[in-house]
Order: sequence, then C-alpha cells, then structure tokens
Amino acid sequence: MRKFLNDPGDAVRDSLVGLAAAHPGVLRYDAANGIVVRADGPVPGKVGVVSGGGSGCEPLHTGFVGPGMLDAAAPGQVFSSPVPDQILAATHAADTGAGVLHIVKNFTGEVMNFEMAAELAADDGVAVEAVVVNDDVAVLDRPGTAGRRGLGGTVLVEKIAGAAAERGQALDAVAAVARRVVARVRSFGVGLSSCTPPVAGRPIFTLPDGEIELGIGISGEPGRQRVPLRSARELAALMVDEVLTDLAPAPGAPVLAMLSGMGGTPSSELHLLYGELDRCLREAGVEPVRRLVGNFITSLEQSGAALTVLELDDELISLWDAPVHTSALRWGM
Amino acid sequence: MRKFLNDPGDAVRDSLVGLAAAHPGVLRYDAANGIVVRADGPVPGKVGVVSGGGSGCEPLHTGFVGPGMLDAAAPGQVFSSPVPDQILAATHAADTGAGVLHIVKNFTGEVMNFEMAAELAADDGVAVEAVVVNDDVAVLDRPGTAGRRGLGGTVLVEKIAGAAAERGQALDAVAAVARRVVARVRSFGVGLSSCTPPVAGRPIFTLPDGEIELGIGISGEPGRQRVPLRSARELAALMVDEVLTDLAPAPGAPVLAMLSGMGGTPSSELHLLYGELDRCLREAGVEPVRRLVGNFITSLEQSGAALTVLELDDELISLWDAPVHTSALRWGM
Repeated sequence: MRKFLNDPGDAVRDSLVGLAAAHPGVLRYDAANGIVVRADGPVPGKVGVVSGGGSGCEPLHTGFVGPGMLDAAAPGQVFSSPVPDQILAATHAADTGAGVLHIVKNFTGEVMNFEMAAELAADDGVAVEAVVVNDDVAVLDRPGTAGRRGLGGTVLVEKIAGAAAERGQALDAVAAVARRVVARVRSFGVGLSSCTPPVAGRPIFTLPDGEIELGIGISGEPGRQRVPLRSARELAALMVDEVLTDLAPAPGAPVLAMLSGMGGTPSSELHLLYGELDRCLREAGVEPVRRLVGNFITSLEQSGAALTVLELDDELISLWDAPVHTSALRWGM
Repeated sequence: MRKFLNDPGDAVRDSLVGLAAAHPGVLRYDAANGIVVRADGPVPGKVGVVSGGGSGCEPLHTGFVGPGMLDAAAPGQVFSSPVPDQILAATHAADTGAGVLHIVKNFTGEVMNFEMAAELAADDGVAVEAVVVNDDVAVLDRPGTAGRRGLGGTVLVEKIAGAAAERGQALDAVAAVARRVVARVRSFGVGLSSCTPPVAGRPIFTLPDGEIELGIGISGEPGRQRVPLRSARELAALMVDEVLTDLAPAPGAPVLAMLSGMGGTPSSELHLLYGELDRCLREAGVEPVRRLVGNFITSLEQSGAALTVLELDDELISLWDAPVHTSALRWGM
C-alpha cells in the first residue's frame, strides 16, 4: 500500500485537518465533534441541510459543505457510518430554528444512525425531516431487502436542496424538492479495479486481468456481475441502458448527466467515456442540458466511474444553476 | 491495462470529443486542426493566450480554455509535443490583432515546436511573445543541459496571464506578468506508482513494493531518486524544503500553494498531504494565503502529487482572484 498517510488509524482525521487548511473561507473542521461545518454558518433563519456517511467517498460529503449546499457534514470512519452523536452535533450546528433536512444514503447503518440522531434532535426541540437517497439501479429493490443504495444522486440532492434552503424556502418545501430529485434520479457504476482501505492495507478484492465489475457501490465492494473488459463505447451503451430503462424518462426530456470517477480514473478517461455517454443518451431520446464530469462520489483510489441521470424540470434547473461555493463544486460565486 | 478506451490510437481525439460534449458553453474542439478553443472567442481586441503540450496531463492544457485563462490549447499525442501546425492554428484562433502570448513548458520538443509556430505566425503578421516555464527544482539547471522542466507553475502562469489579458492589458504587459510568475514559482513532485500510456499498454516503469520516486515530471518517467516510502509528514517536510530552498522567498512572504495530484491519487489523500504541507510552509516562515488542492497537472492515472509554491504580491493576488470559467478551474462566474 503506497498512500499519502501517517498513522492509518488517523487517516480520516488527518485528511479533515488538511481539508480545513485548504479551504478556510469555506468550511471549518470541528475536531471535538468530528464534523465539518460551513465557515460562515449557521445562517440565521435558514433551513439547515446536513448529510454524512462513511469516509472514503470524498468529496462526498465534506467537500460539499459551503454556501448553496450543505451546512454541516458528519464523516464516519472509512466505509462506515458516522455515529449518532456526530450526526446530532452536525444537526445542532446547522439549526437556527428553521429546522434541518437530513440527506441520507440508503445504507442500513447510515439510515439507522440518522434516525437515532433525528430522534435525539427532536428531543432537543429541533424539527428534522429526512430524505433517503436510493438511486442505484444495480440493486434489486424488492420487499425484504434493504433496497437500493444511495449513489451519485446524493450529490444532486445535496446541491438542489441546498439551493432551495439558501433561497429561504421552509423545511417542508426543501424536503419536498429533495424527494422530487430522489424520485427522478438513477445511477449505475462500473469498477475497473479494487481499492485499499488505509487500515486494512490490502485491496478489498482481486480482479483478474481483463475483467471488470458492473454495478459497483461506493464502499469498494465487488459489483453485481464480473465481465470481460469492453470498449468505452460498449460500456456507455450498457450504462445508459441500465439507467434509462429504470428511470423511464419522458421522450425528449431534459436531463442532468453526471459522470463521477471512482477516485483513481483520470480526467482524460472520464471525458472520453462522457463523450460516448452523451451520444448514447441523445440516441435514447433524452437531452443532457446540464453535465458534470469529475470525481464527486468515489471509493478511495478505485478505478471506474458511475453515471447518474436526473430528469429535470424548470424548477430543478433553476436550483441546480443557483450559486454554490464548496471545495468540490463552485460556480456563480 | 483497464481503461475507459476505444481504439488506443484514438484516445486523445475521443477524449477531446467528450471534453467538448461535457462543456459546450466553455470550449469547442476544432477536430480539423486538433485544437481546443474558447466557445465565446476570439474576443476582439484582447491579447490571445495560448498553450499546449503532450496529452496525458489533463486538465492541463485543454481544461484551462475559457474566459479568464486560455483562448486556445494545442494538445499533442500522449506525452508528446503538439506539432507546429497545431500551435499555429491555435495562435490564429486566438489572435484578433492584439497579439498572442505562448505559454511553453520547458521540454525540448515543446520549445522547438512553439518556436517554429511563432515564426510561422510572425510570417502571417501575428505578434507573438513566448514565456517558457521551468519550475521543477528536481532538475539541475546548468549550462549544457536542457534546463528545468515546466510543471505546476504552468497552471499559475496560465491563470495569471489569462487574467491580465482579460483585463485588456497589452501583449508586453501580459508577457511581463507571466515572466514574473515564472521567476517566483517552484515545484517538486513525488510518484507513488507508474502509469500506462494507452498505446503502449504497459506501465512505463516498475516500482518495487514500499518504494517511491522523488522528483518526478509529468510524462510518467521515473524521478530523480528512488527511496523507501515514508509518512506524509516526512514527505511534506522534504517537498517544502526542496521548493523553498530553491525559491528563497522573503521571510513572511504570502504564497500560493498548489498541490496537484498526478491523476490516480484521491482527494482524501491530497488533502491529508496538504495539511502537512500547509503546516511545514508556515513553520518555514511563509504564509499560504491562496491554496489549490486537486488534479490540475497530471500523468494519466499515476499516483502521486506535486507541490507548487508561488511567491505572491498584490498584483499577482488580484490577477489570481479574477473571475475564471474553465472546465477545470472556475470561480467568480
């Protein structure tokens, strides 16, 4: 394992110290509570927007703290949920009386710990609404299962709900638009390598030469299916088919297409793949009117990428375009 | 080799097609000339700012085309210089009569081809100034050698010269501020892996377990020295010492510190290393008043990172802070 690292057990903390040093005008690391908060927050009267999850998926969530997006984020240890106390601290840090929205990825531990934190916050008199993101079409969603995982759709929910809160919308309205995004967003990921958690010190799985994983998540686990490597053109067709078959967008619908690298795939490959995806999306009858290509939700240094498609309407476009200033996403400011 | 790729020989072209599809409001890919140009350019009366170099170092240079930075970029094949005709086409695309600045990294092929293009442009009546960036302190700069390579300093020259041109400064003034940046910027890179050019299909070198390369460039070549892996804390001290010993900044000087990943190192590791670098810089008596952490100048999917330090003054800070809207760097717009 060759990483920029001190003691592997300190990886999350050391990285958050560096994040705060790199972006002092945007965010602050509250080491005592293990959370990241907006440097200029809390904003009086504004609905607080809070998320969190296992570390290792950066910039999610800490890189999205800042004006126009999250007020606070609770990062857990690598690939494991933040504890309820962290989420509670983030909730209090974001609350100024207008209530707080919890944006939760659908992983069992995260859902449970956010629920516990919401109950504790309610006991303290904080109004909390929660939205659970479950956009991964690679997982079958049927009774008796934990349901679909939250993937790249989470980034879009955080941006759009963050913009609604920044505009002064009330908690129920912010929660409603977040749920509207969840209803209209789908994702599918492809892994070209495994990744190595710092404390474990070895790759999570071994991938034979010439094989790849379809339907990966964001915790370095194997995907739904292992198949031979194929061309970017063929992979793009497969990814678009998986996502659009499930989303079933209106013919000619405007969409936001996000291609997020998994951490170890360079910009040149992501853009090459995006070119194929863009063409496939248009051939399938939707129009990518907003696009985002880069590393936004990752698995450490894994090679690979995930496509996320959100069916847009005028309100969602306006909230997406609203100014944002975080360490990982910035425009208009 | 597992990459998002069609025919390896088409990697550069396919990636540029995708870049243009992802950022249609910012840039345009002129496939006939093999160049990338500003979507809203050329801007009448403005000095044109042009750069270029081997592909594989994205977002450099194509990701920096847009308002406030480059008017056009000429990307070569992977790790090889663009040809003079490409550079000439980029020069003409950027010229509206106010002249064009060439920003050239100090690699023998790039310097030669930019010189040839400048002569051809002069024959066509275009006024061209060239600035050569040579910020790599890992290379000894002595008579009879090709001198130091251009590394991360190139990104800063492109941003600052781009801002000066956008403000309407004349060619000699834009060239002068670019040369001032070159004089006050230094870089040093560390490689934790090799990388694999698409056409070659195999890693450029083999790195034994537990060893790393100090003093790498941006073409995937081995560094100045192979040493055992050490902690981020120790690496940061070494990188800061290499850079500041050579730069010899004024005590207490404000600096811009850029930490660029090499393509395969994730955000969490880069920020962890940045935290250590920030502390070392302050201990060494300079103050990082501007910071940039991410993938800005890379070597395909190589693991590693390079520190770039620029000693600032009020004019350079003002030009750095000026609005920019490119696919890889954006603020204020």
